[in-house]
Amino acid sequence: MKARVHVTLKPGVLDPQGKAIAHALQALGFDGVNEARQGKVIELDLADDVAGDPEAVRARVDDMCRKLLANTVIETYRIDLDA
Amino acid sequence: MKARVHVTLKPGVLDPQGKAIAHALQALGFDGVNEARQGKVIELDLADDVAGDPEAVRARVDDMCRKLLANTVIETYRIDLDA
Repeated sequence: MKARVHVTLKPGVLDPQGKAIAHALQALGFDGVNEARQGKVIELDLADDVAGDPEAVRARVDDMCRKLLANTVIETYRIDLDA
Repeated sequence: MKARVHVTLKPGVLDPQGKAIAHALQALGFDGVNEARQGKVIELDLADDVAGDPEAVRARVDDMCRKLLANTVIETYRIDLDA
């Protein structure tokens, strides 16, 4: 089973990397980009013995997010499970 | 209109960041993670005058990906458009 975790900065948190992207796009002639923000995606390949009940898997991945993958002070995360 | 670009390393390309995540998860007691890979998400907020025909917007964002957002030698990208 695959789990995909999207980690993005909370609204209002300064995102210099996103600002750099927006500037670079403008410099390349792409007008009309109001804002760019950059986040992370982490794709986890979970062993079959772990992947049983989707709710249990989600709870486990949520635990991983809170303990390692996301900094919940400044970031939010979203978990997508693929069968 | 919002566009979300997912940039991930092609299969087979070494991903040290992903490996570090997998090791750290194991060290924290999360067994059963076969592999972890890390990619980027770039959220673009496009001005309304740019956002017309979805196909045109997609072509434009595709152009941004090839010119700046993704390194197509080692990365693949996927574009999601939100109305």
